[in-house]
Amino acid sequence: MINSPSGSIEPYRDSSLDVGTRVADLISRMTLTEKIGQLNQRPLGWQLWQRRGPEVTLTTTLDSELERFGGLGAIYGLLRADAWSGRDWTTGADPAASAEITAIVQERVVASSRLGIPALIVEEAPHGHQALGGTLLPTNLASAASWRPELLTEAFAHVGQELRTRGAHIALASGLDLLRDPRWGRSEECFGEDPLLAARFTAAQVHGLRSEPGVGVVLKHFAGQGAAVGGRNGAGAPIGPRELDELHLPAVRAGIDAGAVGVMAAYNEIDGIPCVANEWLLTGLLRDRWGFGGIVMADLGAIDQLGRTTSSAVETAAVALRAGVDLSLCDEAYLFLDEAVGAGLIDEALIDRACARVLRVKIELGLLDPPAPLPVFPAPWSTDDLVAATPVLLINDDQLLPLDMPGRIAVIGPNGDDRDCLLGDYVPPLPDGAGTTVLAGLRDRLGTELVDHEPGSLLTEPLPGGLDRAVSAADAADLVIMVLGGSSVRHYADTFADNGAAELTGAVAATGGEGVDIAEVALPAAQQQLVEAVAATGTPIITVIISGRPLGLQGVIDHSKALVWAGYPGPDGGRLITELIMGDREPVGRLPVSLPRTGASLPVAYNERLGATRRYADIESSALFRFGSGLGYATWSLGVPRNSGGPDLADAVVSADLTNNSGREGRQIVQLYGRSRTPGLLPRQAVLLGFTAVELAAGATAPVDVRIDPYTIAALGLDAPTTGSAPAPTVVLWLSLDGPGEPPESAITMQG
Amino acid sequence: MINSPSGSIEPYRDSSLDVGTRVADLISRMTLTEKIGQLNQRPLGWQLWQRRGPEVTLTTTLDSELERFGGLGAIYGLLRADAWSGRDWTTGADPAASAEITAIVQERVVASSRLGIPALIVEEAPHGHQALGGTLLPTNLASAASWRPELLTEAFAHVGQELRTRGAHIALASGLDLLRDPRWGRSEECFGEDPLLAARFTAAQVHGLRSEPGVGVVLKHFAGQGAAVGGRNGAGAPIGPRELDELHLPAVRAGIDAGAVGVMAAYNEIDGIPCVANEWLLTGLLRDRWGFGGIVMADLGAIDQLGRTTSSAVETAAVALRAGVDLSLCDEAYLFLDEAVGAGLIDEALIDRACARVLRVKIELGLLDPPAPLPVFPAPWSTDDLVAATPVLLINDDQLLPLDMPGRIAVIGPNGDDRDCLLGDYVPPLPDGAGTTVLAGLRDRLGTELVDHEPGSLLTEPLPGGLDRAVSAADAADLVIMVLGGSSVRHYADTFADNGAAELTGAVAATGGEGVDIAEVALPAAQQQLVEAVAATGTPIITVIISGRPLGLQGVIDHSKALVWAGYPGPDGGRLITELIMGDREPVGRLPVSLPRTGASLPVAYNERLGATRRYADIESSALFRFGSGLGYATWSLGVPRNSGGPDLADAVVSADLTNNSGREGRQIVQLYGRSRTPGLLPRQAVLLGFTAVELAAGATAPVDVRIDPYTIAALGLDAPTTGSAPAPTVVLWLSLDGPGEPPESAITMQG
Repeated sequence: MINSPSGSIEPYRDSSLDVGTRVADLISRMTLTEKIGQLNQRPLGWQLWQRRGPEVTLTTTLDSELERFGGLGAIYGLLRADAWSGRDWTTGADPAASAEITAIVQERVVASSRLGIPALIVEEAPHGHQALGGTLLPTNLASAASWRPELLTEAFAHVGQELRTRGAHIALASGLDLLRDPRWGRSEECFGEDPLLAARFTAAQVHGLRSEPGVGVVLKHFAGQGAAVGGRNGAGAPIGPRELDELHLPAVRAGIDAGAVGVMAAYNEIDGIPCVANEWLLTGLLRDRWGFGGIVMADLGAIDQLGRTTSSAVETAAVALRAGVDLSLCDEAYLFLDEAVGAGLIDEALIDRACARVLRVKIELGLLDPPAPLPVFPAPWSTDDLVAATPVLLINDDQLLPLDMPGRIAVIGPNGDDRDCLLGDYVPPLPDGAGTTVLAGLRDRLGTELVDHEPGSLLTEPLPGGLDRAVSAADAADLVIMVLGGSSVRHYADTFADNGAAELTGAVAATGGEGVDIAEVALPAAQQQLVEAVAATGTPIITVIISGRPLGLQGVIDHSKALVWAGYPGPDGGRLITELIMGDREPVGRLPVSLPRTGASLPVAYNERLGATRRYADIESSALFRFGSGLGYATWSLGVPRNSGGPDLADAVVSADLTNNSGREGRQIVQLYGRSRTPGLLPRQAVLLGFTAVELAAGATAPVDVRIDPYTIAALGLDAPTTGSAPAPTVVLWLSLDGPGEPPESAITMQG
Repeated sequence: MINSPSGSIEPYRDSSLDVGTRVADLISRMTLTEKIGQLNQRPLGWQLWQRRGPEVTLTTTLDSELERFGGLGAIYGLLRADAWSGRDWTTGADPAASAEITAIVQERVVASSRLGIPALIVEEAPHGHQALGGTLLPTNLASAASWRPELLTEAFAHVGQELRTRGAHIALASGLDLLRDPRWGRSEECFGEDPLLAARFTAAQVHGLRSEPGVGVVLKHFAGQGAAVGGRNGAGAPIGPRELDELHLPAVRAGIDAGAVGVMAAYNEIDGIPCVANEWLLTGLLRDRWGFGGIVMADLGAIDQLGRTTSSAVETAAVALRAGVDLSLCDEAYLFLDEAVGAGLIDEALIDRACARVLRVKIELGLLDPPAPLPVFPAPWSTDDLVAATPVLLINDDQLLPLDMPGRIAVIGPNGDDRDCLLGDYVPPLPDGAGTTVLAGLRDRLGTELVDHEPGSLLTEPLPGGLDRAVSAADAADLVIMVLGGSSVRHYADTFADNGAAELTGAVAATGGEGVDIAEVALPAAQQQLVEAVAATGTPIITVIISGRPLGLQGVIDHSKALVWAGYPGPDGGRLITELIMGDREPVGRLPVSLPRTGASLPVAYNERLGATRRYADIESSALFRFGSGLGYATWSLGVPRNSGGPDLADAVVSADLTNNSGREGRQIVQLYGRSRTPGLLPRQAVLLGFTAVELAAGATAPVDVRIDPYTIAALGLDAPTTGSAPAPTVVLWLSLDGPGEPPESAITMQG
């Protein structure tokens, strides 16, 4: 290679040197054009190659892109397989072919680069790698219902292994969006409405992925996307700095602390300033205040969307780079960064700043070191323990569950025998025969002859004759299991926006997922009619809701002797829901989000401020089922809490005795809530400050300690600016097994 | 009096001295206790006296209050008459008794004050003085539909005269709240969703009231109350500074510039900090940045509500005073200001600061000058021109209106013969026989025998037999006029919260007004069923909606050949709606707010930012009828616009030729919209920058000039912080006769 003494290794390739030295050396050798190449990530990865049987060939797309800059910063979605990419088991990258595809592409990238710089291979992994054969996890909303982040660490460690064996470097992982409005189609990608749950699960995810050397995580989305007005995808979040800080930033901090190498700048604006143009956010906060050294990647096409605010692509590029976007994702604008420098809109030092961050990640992940052989694709890994922890039992009248000698069962509802409804958005095509619907799970367990089935309706429309057939089936059965809800299925014939989201102007079958926002979150009328018709038969009903967003279930609860809410649990969901219903497993899930009544009575999050609880004249404004609630089969009692830790809030440990009063082993989630009293700051109704999972034998009592998580203290608002010479704030702390409620008599008061 | 040389006048009473000198002199003579007395406004005024026939006597309430401090800052609602106060034509302050009541009370206040300081007499006047015999105006939302602020100036000049003749000093006037969420019960008190409309009408109101010497205006509410989450009264507004500045502050600036002597600190919090505790808002912005010298009054009980954030009333008082609340309104906390000083929580200088502001207003309004005889109560004043300008014609298929030879008419609907539904909240009991319902108006005009009537339903519930009777009436008629909507009526048997708002836990008949927030803003099911039953008869329908909030009318439009929306127009609304329907008057109203589709598909304001327009899978997210729209009987065309003013945006004058193409005289509102292109700031879809009303003879053409109003430029966001070295922003400007829409080809582009 040029610029290096023959026979010696260049400093940037010398792994004995520190990363900063290597980055500086590499940058010093690069032309402006080469540096700009490192800030670009395009075109869409799956368009770079073709497969015919076992044979993989490159298309011309890659070369024409590489010629432009001599190298490329990153390649997105090389292995992505789904309806948008059009890749399937015939044309896509199966586990066997993936490493070869990555290698061929990378070889070409390196060959095109004067200094031999590989591209970051960036893959979607919001709940498993979105590639053929990738292990599919529950969506984030479902996983959060487990309240057991350690299960997600384990699961994502496996995902990290898969990614590494295929030659990928970066997992795009969801976690930063809070579910503040259930109308949002991306609700399923959130770890619920609470900043602490989001922080703990985001960190768990990062820890899992990072346990595989050579795999980095870019977290999406930064920031405040869940606060978009009307739950409309990508719309603005006109929120203030306190709302942002208390609710939307804890997960970002936790993810960065856990070792994320980057964050993805979101589509939305915050109080008018799009995230990709937000210097306060991307530089002032992220870099100057938090000291983050990784990369900021823009969401797909987000920089080009800035064109709505500028007069040219050159200007757009300058605005985004100056704000702090290091790496674009399929934008045109970053092709014009050289012109922006030439026109004096930005200084080359800003190019260097961004390039150094990209190169630092490449060096940290080993891309500039001699390549090591990739590990082999790991053996299949069971998601059962995670999946089983995600359904939430909300009603269980007369201890109908666990089911004992059910007799004849009719499985009724559009989700009863639909595998796709279990999966969520951002999923690869599954292998033939994979997965178990609720119907299949029950038939496997109880025998086909005992389990009848009628869909009864479609998700949002009646099914001709469906009501009548459903009523007949219910009449003939001893028990009805209604399986209702929604689906984020993406068909290959669907219409997609430029960024892969569903495009509502075209054909879209789903009721959820990216791009499918809805206004009315109550169960659709077609399903509601089905419930009422079936209920009229008098056959007892167990209702199972499978849905990626919190649905309004007011019209269901009076007709259901038992009610199970399941976020998209993944392909084996039907089997594990069966095991839960039959009592093979304890229901241990707790709601990670408040379930609303209707779309008109939003918001309902438990941690809105005090004044937000006021009721409407026509309907309660409260949740129908509150955050943190959920039943098990065991019964429990909790003793009086005490502080067994230090006198400072940060060191407090709230302890109490937990007793399993039942005759069966059980699991419980002990939740610690707080409410602050800060002069001049209206507190949130409650703030989840910590939680812990406990397993207890029948009749056993054990002490439980819950620590205050540092990521959640912000939400107490103890730093309010108006306290002046007023006395210090205080905080009341209480434990609960079923969500916040009002502080009880036994609450502990501490100095804030 | 003490402390003054015998025979000479004290400086604070010397009107030849400047106000500052007089205030300083007066303060220097006062004890801490007396100063604190000036910061208190309690108890409720109507509780201070009794009337038996012509005889008025004071209760003991006043004396016990005066003894506490030796004087009192202000007295609220001395003359208030309504269901909450319980005062009516038998027990209340009619015009003849009012001046005497004020005088007796004031005499006692002055006698109790060592320095002879009178109290400010503070009265509600949100749409007319809320006292017996007060002229009742349309609610603000209705008045704003006129788009003619000069009509409101004239009306409030009359209200100011009335107030003065009764001895009142301060009118509490609504205007600062923006209607951002139609679920809010106080929607009717807003001048719509637009900051410029609110600014112009607020200023108009202040100009009118201030034209009466001795009458001051306190504007409510400061600030951001219309942004409360979920449209829930008094709930928090988690908005950012740009959203606050662009939308919610222009009306405040305009009202202050017009001469308001005070603002009322609102119940809500902004991003966590309650307005009454918000030093940034009340002092940093209002005083330090804007230089406002008037008073900040708290909303009723708002300081005490701060007790949710403090550990004692003493602490509460300290927080509010330090933030900048000068005058409390029926709080307990400000009784403890002396203890707050004693405990070192606040310095006495803060007491002086607040007291000086109260005294300054008293001196400016002449309270420390020798009393002049009050003017006599003015002759009745016709509100017709204002009321006639408020209904908005939204549909007029086949030019059904104006009605020609209608034949037999059936007036159907719960609001058809209900006078109270015309009035709104904050109204005094009317004299017997006052007012005209739509039914009465039509019968007066067409003859009773030609106009049948059936209510058909109640507002939110069916009426037994109502549907059948309505269908019969419709069958027998040639034309149906359906009168639907809502009502903010307050019955004397209703239940009220401590601040006079409706209390939903008790008996409340209304569907709107303070305290009556609703979730579903679509027409209630009972009325919708009525519409469908009547429509099935085939008799043509004209629908008149009388409502204090924007209702979702999706279920009405397909059944209505003509549709008129009327905010609460006042007692004579039925007569003037009749005149409009019959063509005696031109419909000139234009929507001051977007009409939504459902409560689940909010927000719909026209000036949300660009990204907010994304549709839902189940319903459009756009308005059903857009801001600024409305039909007349004349037809119009508008020529190509040009800038006939200066080259700077602030000096621009957008001009075009307007032609009345019809055979009848007409009025039109020419609206000027803009959209900015500021690098790195997502613009609002459109911003109303100016408007002007034009009257043109049949067939006439005239040039129209629209200037850019200074209060609205903020909403363009031209000061965005991210522009850096990028080119200056640009603004496109366009004229419209029916709301914003997208910028047309003919739009003018200017430097920002």
